[in-house]
Parts: sequence; structure tokens; C-alpha cells
Amino acid sequence: MSQPAYVLLIDCTDQKGLVHKITGVLYSQNVNIIGNQEFVEREQDRFFMRTDFSGKINATAILEELQKVLPADASISLRPKRAKNIVVLVTKEQHCLGELLVRHQFNELNANILAVIGNHDTLKPFTHQFGVNFHLVSHEGKSREEHEKEVLEVAKRYDPEYLVLAKYMRILSPEFVRNFPNRIINIHHSFLPAFIGANPYRQAYERGVKIIGATAHFVNNDLDEGPILMQNVIPVDHTYSVQDMMQSGRDVEKIVLAHALKLVFNDKVAVVGNKTIVFD
Amino acid sequence: MSQPAYVLLIDCTDQKGLVHKITGVLYSQNVNIIGNQEFVEREQDRFFMRTDFSGKINATAILEELQKVLPADASISLRPKRAKNIVVLVTKEQHCLGELLVRHQFNELNANILAVIGNHDTLKPFTHQFGVNFHLVSHEGKSREEHEKEVLEVAKRYDPEYLVLAKYMRILSPEFVRNFPNRIINIHHSFLPAFIGANPYRQAYERGVKIIGATAHFVNNDLDEGPILMQNVIPVDHTYSVQDMMQSGRDVEKIVLAHALKLVFNDKVAVVGNKTIVFD
Amino acid sequence: MSQPAYVLLIDCTDQKGLVHKITGVLYSQNVNIIGNQEFVEREQDRFFMRTDFSGKINATAILEELQKVLPADASISLRPKRAKNIVVLVTKEQHCLGELLVRHQFNELNANILAVIGNHDTLKPFTHQFGVNFHLVSHEGKSREEHEKEVLEVAKRYDPEYLVLAKYMRILSPEFVRNFPNRIINIHHSFLPAFIGANPYRQAYERGVKIIGATAHFVNNDLDEGPILMQNVIPVDHTYSVQDMMQSGRDVEKIVLAHALKLVFNDKVAVVGNKTIVFD
Amino acid sequence: MSQPAYVLLIDCTDQKGLVHKITGVLYSQNVNIIGNQEFVEREQDRFFMRTDFSGKINATAILEELQKVLPADASISLRPKRAKNIVVLVTKEQHCLGELLVRHQFNELNANILAVIGNHDTLKPFTHQFGVNFHLVSHEGKSREEHEKEVLEVAKRYDPEYLVLAKYMRILSPEFVRNFPNRIINIHHSFLPAFIGANPYRQAYERGVKIIGATAHFVNNDLDEGPILMQNVIPVDHTYSVQDMMQSGRDVEKIVLAHALKLVFNDKVAVVGNKTIVFD
Repeated sequence: MSQPAYVLLIDCTDQKGLVHKITGVLYSQNVNIIGNQEFVEREQDRFFMRTDFSGKINATAILEELQKVLPADASISLRPKRAKNIVVLVTKEQHCLGELLVRHQFNELNANILAVIGNHDTLKPFTHQFGVNFHLVSHEGKSREEHEKEVLEVAKRYDPEYLVLAKYMRILSPEFVRNFPNRIINIHHSFLPAFIGANPYRQAYERGVKIIGATAHFVNNDLDEGPILMQNVIPVDHTYSVQDMMQSGRDVEKIVLAHALKLVFNDKVAVVGNKTIVFD
Repeated sequence: MSQPAYVLLIDCTDQKGLVHKITGVLYSQNVNIIGNQEFVEREQDRFFMRTDFSGKINATAILEELQKVLPADASISLRPKRAKNIVVLVTKEQHCLGELLVRHQFNELNANILAVIGNHDTLKPFTHQFGVNFHLVSHEGKSREEHEKEVLEVAKRYDPEYLVLAKYMRILSPEFVRNFPNRIINIHHSFLPAFIGANPYRQAYERGVKIIGATAHFVNNDLDEGPILMQNVIPVDHTYSVQDMMQSGRDVEKIVLAHALKLVFNDKVAVVGNKTIVFD
Repeated sequence: MSQPAYVLLIDCTDQKGLVHKITGVLYSQNVNIIGNQEFVEREQDRFFMRTDFSGKINATAILEELQKVLPADASISLRPKRAKNIVVLVTKEQHCLGELLVRHQFNELNANILAVIGNHDTLKPFTHQFGVNFHLVSHEGKSREEHEKEVLEVAKRYDPEYLVLAKYMRILSPEFVRNFPNRIINIHHSFLPAFIGANPYRQAYERGVKIIGATAHFVNNDLDEGPILMQNVIPVDHTYSVQDMMQSGRDVEKIVLAHALKLVFNDKVAVVGNKTIVFD
Repeated sequence: MSQPAYVLLIDCTDQKGLVHKITGVLYSQNVNIIGNQEFVEREQDRFFMRTDFSGKINATAILEELQKVLPADASISLRPKRAKNIVVLVTKEQHCLGELLVRHQFNELNANILAVIGNHDTLKPFTHQFGVNFHLVSHEGKSREEHEKEVLEVAKRYDPEYLVLAKYMRILSPEFVRNFPNRIINIHHSFLPAFIGANPYRQAYERGVKIIGATAHFVNNDLDEGPILMQNVIPVDHTYSVQDMMQSGRDVEKIVLAHALKLVFNDKVAVVGNKTIVFD
């Protein structure tokens, strides 16, 4: 396919004829629709549509025509299909970062890792092995506000489309998150039953859980509470030590994060309320 | 929802503007589109669309209007959303039949089991427990042709939309299959690596496989070779005897069959060449 | 194998030479060891051993000899390998009961279902289809204490080795549970993240979870807090309604319960603290 | 634990009293048994035992005492618990090698990667990023015999305990394999149904498979036919292109290989006939 390819994501109040009207605009602009998916969230009466198309387009004309036929509350995203620019935040654990750096090096991430920012320098040499910039922004002796301001300042230098928290172990303030609405992705472990308080792996060990899970989600104002992108689990048993369970946790976390990023970076995700619509 | 609901499945050579044209017909008929999915199989340049809608419709008018805007090779299926009428074929094993009968009794199958036909009478009392008709059509002393003729005759009395082979252990001839094109669903075990010849569970045991699978598929002229609907696996290990592996095989087969039937009975499956398009 | 088969489960403070001493007793009694598994829980310094053996044994002699060589705190269970006698408690949902009744009828449960007790009579006809006794013990107009006393009285008539809560929707008091220590098995749904309060499926729907789980566990004094036997999950997505998620929950619950019971009824489970040792 | 730790693996014809005799030897040598697992393969009447223990031992004395009490055909392996020395063979694909190199760098592999040997130099820079030796042994213009001789010569310089074929795309001759009996581990994709001939991913695509698998196995004389160590699958669907399926294949291959190696490098695997006994 020599023609440029695009993804159109539309999100608006549902009404009759939307698919017909939207595809009418695309038809009149002579594009080639490759795929089209629609979903109506009945509880909120909200319409979602993702269209994959190619063609030599006049983007302004398409957006103007769409605005004419769509409800006033429509959010329209028309993006060329291309690798996304990202900055990765880390603390000390390498497993998620390693997964991203290897996929990145072999063009399997659909993203450009512009830089890695760590609040420790543990992963600096590892990041450099892959020829990627690493910035230490230590939180030592700083208020959360000061630290976040510095992280933000470093990140913004790269103008990233997404921030990926690859086991970044600090809680982000609502003020920070507001800079990247639905553009920060986090990964965290999770257990059935859920364990509150410190040292969840020890609690999981003591309770003898049989599966350990991981959840990738967008970050919003509530920690670990944003819209879920992907979840999976890995089996464990009574012979696993706390350390073995932590290793299993790392194994499932890195895969869940990588697969969630693939969805996001391919523009397959919309958000409604506190949940995702995943067009896959 | 008090209005009748329908599923429209369209399958034709791809061309520009199909979604626009099809939704235009639906729009003009004033229906409420609940969901819409489109897929283009690029290798065969074939367009597939599934539309879920409700409304008081004039089915003839919709079909006529669609034929006007679609390519000549279009196959159009417009069906009310309702439980399908089915006949189940069995031999001696109960696990798949049991799964279907329990779901059927509690309205979880989206199908009416009109009758069960067995080439043995082993499962007759079990079927009767659920208040479902059972017909013994023994193959003893008959040619395959004669036996199939009888099975067909009994099945056709019920005018079923689908035949479900719930561990029916006889091979169906192309002549028989031709009566129910893409309307016969089979379940069979499967192994990695694949084992040829008799007694695959013994071969799997001797090779020490770590997973046992099951595949649900439409039946076409080649045994075990029709379009695949669903597949899944279950873990096993060296402590499993051949009998334990067979039990695991039964456990995965019944779940895979039940889930595959749910897709088919909800009109979520189209077929292209030897593969399925599953709109789920 | 024509000789009677047994399972020996030992649980005691760890010390040197236990395996040697225990197998010495068995060796002197001339049994055939089929399998032997040992596990030491290091945190509590507790030794667990499961031995599968056959032979014409003098059980009293074996127990006496074992007591001589084991620490004073040893718990020793020597049981013939045979189907367990069970009573099943239900409320209105059939999916778990159906799974158990079908497996029971075809000798795949390794248990005799002596009776089903319901606090509603919804599942009475269904239970009767399988030729199994059903007792209605309504909770209407009774205190929890009175109701439990009646349930206990009916259950004890059958002298069951295990009670299985197959979606029994009432909380059991510690007094009731004390009658069957580590002999009551429950199944319940579970979600990541965990949802507190009423209507967890609605909460899961609103949060857009991507997996729904089920946990089978022994019941102890804390509701839903006993030692975990087995856990598994099933994928769901944004297209699932609350009802679809409930169906997925039922599908995973019944399988997890059936597999957990298989472990328990084959004497493969020991308990230490609030967790299980599963010898599989 | 300050005391040295060991793994004892025994494999012999079954007879009465073996566990008692073996543990008697260990007891007399005053070791601390951490875990003990036994399995009897009934079809071949063969006994397998794995014992994890620690202590200041006299290895020669233990081996001599064991030989006295075990059948003449016993194979006894007594090894200190430690990271294994390995050489990795590759061709052009990086996904498995990347997984191993990252785990290696962070001590999660329980192995020392002494060198990587490639029949192409594609992965040389990538290997060097991790500070690991890379040897190009091109097969161009050489007979298989000549090429294998060179590979063997380079590998043997490192005296590896295991060779790992991390997508090494050349078939090894029985002569080569004989140098490393049950010490070469391979990973390959696998499909249900199995596809014979070139380009299995295209065949899988055309048939519309719903899962893609991977199998890790020891290499013996028959290509892809040695004892299976681990298998797993990943779901795919009709929207996956051949390239997407290949990516899914890579994702599952690297995880299956890493987990299989963990079993092997922790001395948890025995082989009987053409199958593995995995003590996990």
C-alpha cells in the first residue's frame, strides 16, 4: 500500500444514521475504508466508531464535513497511522523496561522511545545499552510538587504523545496527570482476593493464591483506578516462595503492558466514563 | 426493548462505499442500529458486514433495496434474533450432550434442541431425563449410505437450522453434508504435535504433551477440515494417565463446543474460503 | 490393580529423617508405594506428605507404627481411595449444581451426591431429573440460628464427608462451620480489581474489567476467606452486558468448582494456616 | 541458608522400598531435605525421584552408598544448585535471544550465557549490547557436516552444560546431537491443526486458526520430536494478518522457551523414553 493510512476515532451522543453520515463523508472524499467498527454504549447512549482507511486526503475538509453531520458533543480524532512518540518512567525494576526496549529496537512496539526518566539511576546503564537517553530525576529532598515539576519539564522537552509507567513506583498527583489525559499508561500487579496495605506478595503467599494477575490501565486522578486496558493472569502454587511469586508477577506484568501498549499505539482504544472501548 | 430485533449479514466482493450504501438503506427504513461490524478479507478482496438492529421492518423492502446497491455476487442474510432450532447427533459419550442439555434447560444455549439422534442408544435415558426426544438410528448392518439416509430422514422431520455433532463418531459423507452447508458443527480433540492414526490419547501420553486442545468447526467435505470456529487448550502433565488425559479432553471439548455454538446461534459467524470471520 | 488402594496424608512439625521413617513403616508393612510427595512449609517449619499406596494392610498397625516415629503434633489421615459422600447446598442458580449432577451421573466426580438441600425449591425438579434427593429448608420466617440448625439436621442424616456450596447464597455462621472443619467447599466469583458491596457484576461492568474470575475455597469462620483451592479466569470485553458478564461468571465458576472438588475428593489437599498445599 | 544446596535426581527400575533406602542414605549423611518428589512411570515400571537438600556433604560417600542400595540400572545425578553454563545458537530472529539476554543480565535465568553462536551475523550487535560474546559460524559454502563441526568446535571451547536453540533455523544431525544428550533445548511454533510443508503461518492464516502455540523440547535424533518440556498457546483471530500471527508466535515462543529453561536449569526435568517427567 503506497497511500498514506489513517485512523479515525469518533465519540459522540448516539443518534440515528451516524454510520451512514460518517461513511458518506469518507465516501465523498474518495478514501479506501479498510475496516470499520462501531459500538454504542447503551447506558450512556454514546456512539463510538473507529475507521481504518487510506488515501490522499484533505484532512481539514474531512474534519469540517464530519463536524457538519455529527452532534455538537462529538470528539473526532483523525491520525495518520504511525509510531507514537513516548517517554518511559521507571524506578528500579527492569522487566517492563527491558520488554519495551527490546521490542523498540526491533520495531515491534509501534513507538519511538524518546527517553527514559528514572527517579533512581539503577536502570541508566541498561537503558544506554539500547542507545536510549536516560534522565535521572531524583525525588530525594524534594516535595512531590517539586519532583513532578522536574519530571514534567524533562518529559515535555520530548513532546511525547504518551507516558508509559514501566514500574514507576511513585504516585502521580492529579495536577501532573491533567497534562496527559488518557495518555499515561500504568501497569500493576493484582490478586484475587485483593490485598490492601503493604507487601501484597507476602499477603498473596500467606493466603496461598493460585493465580497472580496484572492490569494495564490509563492513569486518571485515582491511583490504580483509571480505565482498564488489559488484564491477564499466570498460575502459581504452594511451592512458590514470595520471591517466586514476584518473578511470576514480573513475567505477567511485562506481557500485559506490552500488549496494552500495542492497542493504544494502534489507536484502538476509546474511553467512556471509567472504562475502555477496545476495538480489536 | 419491545421492538423486534434482527441480524443482517452481508458478504460480497469489496468495493468503495459499501458501508455507506448499506447503512443508507437501513437509515431510510428507519431502523435502530445497535451494532455494526465490517471486515474486508484482503486476500480475496471480500467484504463482510454484520449489523444488529431493531425496529418494525419491511423485510422485503430492505432486501430489495440492498440488492440494488450491492454487487451481484452479494449474499444477504436477514434474520430475526431468536433461538435456533437444532438436532444433536451423538454416539456414546455424554459430556458434550450433557453440557448442551443443561444449558438448554435453563435457556443459556439460544437454541431449541428438537431431538437427539444416536447411532447407539446409550444416551437415550439421559436425554429423556431432560424431556428431549431421542431417536436411535443404528448403523448396524447398514451401508453408510443407508444409515445416513435414515439419519437425514429423521433429522429433516424436525426441519433443524443446525445439526450439532456432540461426539458423533461416524464420518459424514459429502452427500450428507451437502444438505446442511455450513450448518453442521463438530467438536474434536486436538494435540500439539498432531498424532495420526488410532488412539491419539495414547500417542499424546507417550509423547508427554503438556496441553490438550479442542477444536469446534463447521463440517465440510473433508473430515475435521472445515472452517474453525473456536479452539482452546487445557494443561496436563506427566502424572496424567491416558484416562486422565481423556477426562481433560472431555472437559475442554464441552466448553469449546458450547462457546462455538453461542457464536453460531447468535449469527456472529461468516465463512470465507475455508475460514471463519467471527464478529465477537 | 486388584489390591485395595489408600492415601496417607501426614502433617507435622518438620524434623530430620521423616520421609525415611515414614517410608520405613510402609516398607515394613509390605505395601506398594505408587506415588509419594513431600513438602515443607518453611515459614511454619511444617512437614506435609502424601503417599498413594496399595496392598492388603493392617491399618491399625500402620497408624500405631507411624505414631511411634512421628512428632507428637502429627496429624495422620489414612483413607481408602474411594468416592466421597457429599451433600450439596444450593439456592436458585443451577450452573454449578448441573455440572456436579452430570459428572456424578457418569462417575466423573469421585463422589456420591447423597442429597441436595436448597433454601428455595427452584432446583427441586432439576435435581429430581437426576434421581437425587432434594430437601427444601426454607429460611423464611426463621432466625439464622434456627435455619442452620435445620440444615445441619437434614445434612447430618446423610453423614456426609463434605458439604459443597454450589452457589448457596447464605452466609454460614462459625457455629455451623465448626461441624465440618475444612470439609465445606464454596465457589465464588472474583474480580480484579475487587469490588466491595452489592452487585459486583455491575461494578465490574462499569469499570470495564477484561477478565472475570472464580475462586473455590474451603469455608472457615470468615466468609469468602478460607484456604483457596483453585482459581481461574475467563476473558470478557466492553461488548459484554452485565448479563453477559454474569454468564461468563457462571461458566468459569462451574469449571473451577468441579476441578477443585476433584482435588479434594482425591485426597490431594492439605491445609496449613489459611492456605492449601495441593499435591497435584 | 549458608549451607551448600544440592539436587539429587535418581532414575531406575522400580522396586519396593526405594524411597526408604534413598532417604536412609541421606539421613545417615545428616543432610537437610528441603523437598522430595517421586514418580513411578507405570508403563515402563520406572522410578524417578528428585530431592532438594542442603548440608556439608561428602558427595563420593553419598554416591557410593546410593549405588549399594539402588538397582544396577540406576542413573544418579547429584549436582550443586547453581547457575548452568550455556551457549545459545541463533539465526536471525531476536525475540527469544532478547528474552534470554535480558533475564541473564538481571540474574533471572539461572544460567551463564557464555556465548552466542549465529549462522548469520544479524544478531551480533544486539548480543554485544549485553556484553556477551558472539561467534559467526556461517554455513555458506560448507557441507552440513563441515558446518556442524565448526559450530561444535566453537561451542566446546566454552564447555557448556546446555545448548539453547533460540530460533536456530538449521536442522542438527544425529551426530551433532549425540554430543549433548538431553542437553539441547529447542523452541518451535505449533498449530492446531498441524501444517506440513513450507510457510506454516500462511497455512494457519488460510485455515483461520484461533490459537497459535509454541513447544519447547529437548532435541534428539528426530527433528522437532524430542521430549516436550513445555507448551502454551496464544489466541488469534480472523483480523490477524500473516504478519500479526507471526508476531503472536514470537510472543508465545519466547515465554515458553524462558519457562522451559527455568525448569531445566533448576534440575527439575527427567526423561523417560520420549517424554519428560517435570518435577514442578
